[in-house]
Amino acid sequence: MTKIENLPAVILVRPQMGENIGAAARAMGNFGLTDLRLVAPRDGWPNERAVDMASGAFEHMPAPRLYDDLGSALTDCHFAYATTARRRDMEKPSSDVRRACENAMMRIDQKQKVALVFGPERTGLENDDISLCDHLIHIPTNPDFSSLNLGQAVLLVLYEWSMQSNSEFQIPEHAHIPATHEEFENMMARLETELTTNNFFKSPEMRPTMMNNIRTMLLRAGFTDQETNTFHGIISALRGNKIKD
Amino acid sequence: MTKIENLPAVILVRPQMGENIGAAARAMGNFGLTDLRLVAPRDGWPNERAVDMASGAFEHMPAPRLYDDLGSALTDCHFAYATTARRRDMEKPSSDVRRACENAMMRIDQKQKVALVFGPERTGLENDDISLCDHLIHIPTNPDFSSLNLGQAVLLVLYEWSMQSNSEFQIPEHAHIPATHEEFENMMARLETELTTNNFFKSPEMRPTMMNNIRTMLLRAGFTDQETNTFHGIISALRGNKIKD
Repeated sequence: MTKIENLPAVILVRPQMGENIGAAARAMGNFGLTDLRLVAPRDGWPNERAVDMASGAFEHMPAPRLYDDLGSALTDCHFAYATTARRRDMEKPSSDVRRACENAMMRIDQKQKVALVFGPERTGLENDDISLCDHLIHIPTNPDFSSLNLGQAVLLVLYEWSMQSNSEFQIPEHAHIPATHEEFENMMARLETELTTNNFFKSPEMRPTMMNNIRTMLLRAGFTDQETNTFHGIISALRGNKIKD
Repeated sequence: MTKIENLPAVILVRPQMGENIGAAARAMGNFGLTDLRLVAPRDGWPNERAVDMASGAFEHMPAPRLYDDLGSALTDCHFAYATTARRRDMEKPSSDVRRACENAMMRIDQKQKVALVFGPERTGLENDDISLCDHLIHIPTNPDFSSLNLGQAVLLVLYEWSMQSNSEFQIPEHAHIPATHEEFENMMARLETELTTNNFFKSPEMRPTMMNNIRTMLLRAGFTDQETNTFHGIISALRGNKIKD
């Protein structure tokens, strides 16, 4: 992610509660963004409650820039995405968060400066603000219970942006290395011998089929070397080989 | 979303703050989930702060069910995803939220009951809890500033689940349905008893760790009902219970 120089700006328009500004900053920290812009925050700036809620995120970014109106905050931006809770009767392109973030990444690749714009808590963005933006973002929620606060909306949009931007924050899938088939088959041969000795197989004809079934279920686990040894130990223990210890 | 009948359970293990239980319920409301399970919530239940924070979400779902431990909460579940902040040295499948939710949707489509498990605020899930789960979920965040609270983690995971559930997904050719955790744990309890009788554990102190390792390797196989029975048969045979046949 550090490769991306023109990271998106996050613009909060007339935010009311300091807590939500702090939550937005915290979300930015989690997903590596640093360009926070505040348009006419109700309680002024700086705001103690914002700092409390940010869990230290403000120390990882330059001070937020303050603007009187959204137009001023957008001057250096090429493309602005407005997050809206309700559908608007506007002839603007709109999409869900995922598609909007795909679109944003394409623009960032083209060196465009992109802005993610969020409205005030109660009312959301006014039509005058929305008219300044290029694209509407919807967060798909349950129509019977749609209740995201400002901090939560920022969190979800930035998460999607981060997932699109690249996989640098992603922890690689756990490198789980199974034992070689030779080791696995040695274990299976041992098990087959012990099961045969103990009359596990109802008839000799059934034996290949049953062993295949057991192989299927154990192979699926992908035992590591160490786990193969553990399974040998389990066989020994169940056979009573350790009773004499 | 309404087409899916067996929606995932959300399990909060030893949650500390009522606010986070409320935030989790609110996230569930936003994404249409209703099966909330609480394992030993610190401040008991019901909790006023949870109700305040939920913004009415509890009115859209049955009362949360209470459990003493994670094992009890998982009995009817086929597959459990554990959300962890840190990397764990465990031989468990792990993936980011998106891939985990793709996997969960595939299972739900096969009528599996799936659980999304979240740990306590400060410490996260303990290893004993994680050992009961099938798969680890990571939320990819900035390694230099990773600061998601419990409510935010639930929100992101349920958002991804919701995005998956609304999108088209492929039906796998072979529906592999693991046994419920209750059946699996019965098998594990039997194995533990037999191994103890046969002095498998070098010392009583080692027993929980070794059992967790064995649980991890066998859980990964996702034994079906039939395969669980087969494993019971293997234990019996190795113990010599069939010698008299």
